[in-house]
Amino acid sequence: MRRALAELTGTAFLVATVIGSGIAASRPSTDPGLRLLENSIATGAVLVALILTLQPVSASFNPVVTVVEAALGLLSWSAAALLALAQVAGAILGAVVANLMFDLDAVSWSGHDRSAGHLWLAEVVATLGLVLVVFGGLRTRRTETIAYGVGGYIAAAYWFTSSTSFANPAVTAGRMFSDTFAGISPSSVPMFVLVQVLGGLLGLVLVRLLFPTLEGEPA
Amino acid sequence: MRRALAELTGTAFLVATVIGSGIAASRPSTDPGLRLLENSIATGAVLVALILTLQPVSASFNPVVTVVEAALGLLSWSAAALLALAQVAGAILGAVVANLMFDLDAVSWSGHDRSAGHLWLAEVVATLGLVLVVFGGLRTRRTETIAYGVGGYIAAAYWFTSSTSFANPAVTAGRMFSDTFAGISPSSVPMFVLVQVLGGLLGLVLVRLLFPTLEGEPA
Amino acid sequence: MRRALAELTGTAFLVATVIGSGIAASRPSTDPGLRLLENSIATGAVLVALILTLQPVSASFNPVVTVVEAALGLLSWSAAALLALAQVAGAILGAVVANLMFDLDAVSWSGHDRSAGHLWLAEVVATLGLVLVVFGGLRTRRTETIAYGVGGYIAAAYWFTSSTSFANPAVTAGRMFSDTFAGISPSSVPMFVLVQVLGGLLGLVLVRLLFPTLEGEPA
Amino acid sequence: MRRALAELTGTAFLVATVIGSGIAASRPSTDPGLRLLENSIATGAVLVALILTLQPVSASFNPVVTVVEAALGLLSWSAAALLALAQVAGAILGAVVANLMFDLDAVSWSGHDRSAGHLWLAEVVATLGLVLVVFGGLRTRRTETIAYGVGGYIAAAYWFTSSTSFANPAVTAGRMFSDTFAGISPSSVPMFVLVQVLGGLLGLVLVRLLFPTLEGEPA
Repeated sequence: MRRALAELTGTAFLVATVIGSGIAASRPSTDPGLRLLENSIATGAVLVALILTLQPVSASFNPVVTVVEAALGLLSWSAAALLALAQVAGAILGAVVANLMFDLDAVSWSGHDRSAGHLWLAEVVATLGLVLVVFGGLRTRRTETIAYGVGGYIAAAYWFTSSTSFANPAVTAGRMFSDTFAGISPSSVPMFVLVQVLGGLLGLVLVRLLFPTLEGEPA
Repeated sequence: MRRALAELTGTAFLVATVIGSGIAASRPSTDPGLRLLENSIATGAVLVALILTLQPVSASFNPVVTVVEAALGLLSWSAAALLALAQVAGAILGAVVANLMFDLDAVSWSGHDRSAGHLWLAEVVATLGLVLVVFGGLRTRRTETIAYGVGGYIAAAYWFTSSTSFANPAVTAGRMFSDTFAGISPSSVPMFVLVQVLGGLLGLVLVRLLFPTLEGEPA
Repeated sequence: MRRALAELTGTAFLVATVIGSGIAASRPSTDPGLRLLENSIATGAVLVALILTLQPVSASFNPVVTVVEAALGLLSWSAAALLALAQVAGAILGAVVANLMFDLDAVSWSGHDRSAGHLWLAEVVATLGLVLVVFGGLRTRRTETIAYGVGGYIAAAYWFTSSTSFANPAVTAGRMFSDTFAGISPSSVPMFVLVQVLGGLLGLVLVRLLFPTLEGEPA
Repeated sequence: MRRALAELTGTAFLVATVIGSGIAASRPSTDPGLRLLENSIATGAVLVALILTLQPVSASFNPVVTVVEAALGLLSWSAAALLALAQVAGAILGAVVANLMFDLDAVSWSGHDRSAGHLWLAEVVATLGLVLVVFGGLRTRRTETIAYGVGGYIAAAYWFTSSTSFANPAVTAGRMFSDTFAGISPSSVPMFVLVQVLGGLLGLVLVRLLFPTLEGEPA
C-alpha cells in the first residue's frame, strides 16, 4: 500500500505539473513555442524531483513502465495492477487539483483533438525511448541516474516528437480532465494508449537486446 | 551559531535571487511568461548551488522545513526557533541587498495583493510537495540528492501553482520589502504563512506514511 | 553487435532530437533566438539521458569520438569502423523518423548552405572541446560525469559557436536528410566533416598534454 | 605547467562562451531578457562541463578563487601567480576566438560603460557568493559537487545581480576585447576588478566562519 500511495502521490504531482504549467504558460505567454518551453522545463524539473524523492518507495508514475517491470519479473502482476490503478487515480487527482489551483472548474473535458498517424508514430517512439531510459538504468543497477535520465529525456521529448510526448497512459487519462493547453479529447485517448503500449513492447524488446542480463547475475 | 549564520546567508541569497531575478526579468522582457521563466530558472539554479554549498552546516532556508525537522526529532525546538529567526533576518537582508543592487530604495513595501482561495490552495499544495521532497531525501539517507530535488521542484512549482509557489514563510516575509515583480503586499502575508504551515503539516503526515522509519533504524 | 546496436539507437535518438526539436521550434516560435534556445535545451537534455542510459553498452554517437578512442587504444580499429557505420546508419534513421513524426516526407534534402571560414573555425573549436570533455572524464575514470559534461557542453556550444556546433560527422550526415531548421546542404557536408576531424585531432593532442596517463596506471 | 594549461584552456572556453553566446543571442533575439536568458543558460552549462572536465588538473578559471586558495594554504603564491597569468591569457584567447568564430575582427575594444555604485555592490555580492560556493565544496571534501554548484550559481547570478555577475577579474579582462553584448569598456575594468577582490576577501571571511576546519583534520 505504501508503494501505491507513492505512485498516486507522484503521478498526481506529475499531472498537476503537466496541466498546471500548461495553464500558467498559456496565460502570460503569447508565443506558442515559449509556452511549450515553459511546459517542458517544468515537467522535466518536476520529474527529477519526484523520482529522486519517491524512488526508495516506488516511482514509475506510468502503467507502461509498471507493466514492463512485471514482464521482466521485477514485480508480480497483481502488484502491477494495483500500482497502475493508483497511477490513474493520481493522474485524475492531479488534474483536478491543477484546475482548482488556477481557479477553474474541478473538471472540464478537454476538446483538444489529437488524432493523426504522425502523432501515433511519435507516441510509439516516445514511449519506446522512455522504457529504454528507465530500464537501461535499472538493468545495470544505476538506479540513482534514472531521475536525471528521465527528466532530461521527457524535457527533450516534448520537442522531438510532434505529440509533445505523452508516453504514459495514466497521464494521458488525467489530461482528459482539463480543457486547457495540455488537454486531450477523450475520443483521442484510446489510440494514444494503444500506441503507447505498442511503444512499450518495442522498448522491452530493445531492452532485452541491449541489456540481456541484470548486471551481477549469470546470463 | 554556525548553523544560524548558514541559514541567514543562504536565505539572504535565496531571497536576493527571487527578488533580484524578478527585477532583472521585468526590465528587459515584455512577455510576462518569459519573465516567470527567467525567475523560475534562476531560483531553481541558485537553490541547487546554495543547498550543495551549505548543507554540511545547515541548509533549510525555510521555517516550515525547520519546524518539521523539530517535529521529527532531528532538531531541538530551541535550535529550531533560532534557525527560523536567522532565516527571517536573512530574507529581509536579501530583499534589501537586491533592492540596492538594482539601484532602488533599500526598502519599498510591496503593493502586490495576493489574496484568493485558489492561491491559498496552491500554497498548501506547494509546501506539502516541498516537505515531501526534502524529507524523502533525509529519511532515506540520500542527503546528496536533496539539492537537485529541491531545485527541480521549485523551478517546476513556479509553473504548476497559480501562486508561483512561495512555500516558505521566511521568503514570504522578505518579499514584502520590495515593491517589484516578486513582491507580496504585507496584508496578504498572514494567510500565506498560515496555509504554508497547513501544507507543511499535511506534508509531515504524508512523510510519516511514505517513509515510516529512518532507513537503517528499527521501526 | 550489442555495442553497434547501442550506437545506432543512441545516434538515432540524438539526430531525431536535433532535427525534430528544430522543426517543433520553428513552427510556433517567431523569434529565431528562442528557436535556438529550444533546440539547444532539448539536445543537451537528451544527451544527458542517452549517455546515462547507453553508457554501460556504448555511448559515443560520434565517429570523431570513436576514432579518438581507437587512437588511444581503448578500441580496435575494426570495432571503431563498425561503430562509426552504426552511428551513420542511426543518424539517417533518426532523420527519417523525425521527418515522419512531423508529417513530412521521409527524406527531403536540405538546402541550407553552411559554407564559410568562420563556420569551419567554429566546428574545429566545437569538436576540440567535445573531445576534451569526453576524454577528460574517461582518462580520470570519472565515467559517471560524462553525461552531464557532454550535455552541458553541447547546450552551450549551440550558443558559443556560430555554426551551432555540429561537432559530429554522423549527425552532420543525418542532418542532410531533412530540409528543415537544423538541416545542412549535402554540398556543405564534406568541409564540415573535414574540420571536425581536424578539431578531433587537436583535441587528442590537448588530451594527451592535460591527461598524459590513464589514472591508476604507470605513466 | 599542466595546471596552467588547464586554466588557460578552461578560461578560454569560458570567455568564448560568455562572449560568443552574447553575440549569438543578440543577433536573432529581439527581447533583451531572452538574450540574457540564453547567455546565462549557456554560461552555466559550459561551467558544469569545464569544471567536470578539468577539475582533476585545475579548474578555477578565476584569479580571485586562485588567490583565496593561496590564502588558505592550498596553493603556493608563486603557483597562484602563474595560474592567474594563464587565466588572463586564456580569457583574451577566448575573446579573440569568439570574435573570429562570429566573423568579427579579432579584437574590437568594447565601448560598453559599466560604472555605477549599484553595479559595484552587485560585483561584491556576486564574488562573495562564488567564493562561498567553491570553498563550501572544497572545505568539506565534496569536490564532485562544485561543478553543479558553480554552474547553478552563475546562471542565477546573471539574474540576481544588476551587473549580470562578472565575478572574475580574468573574465572581466577578456570581455574588454569584444565590442559586443557581453563586453565591458576598458575604463570600467579597474573598479570591477577592485570590488571583485573585495568580494573575494569578504567571501574568505565567511568561508572561515562557516567552514572553520578542513573536514577530517583537527581544528
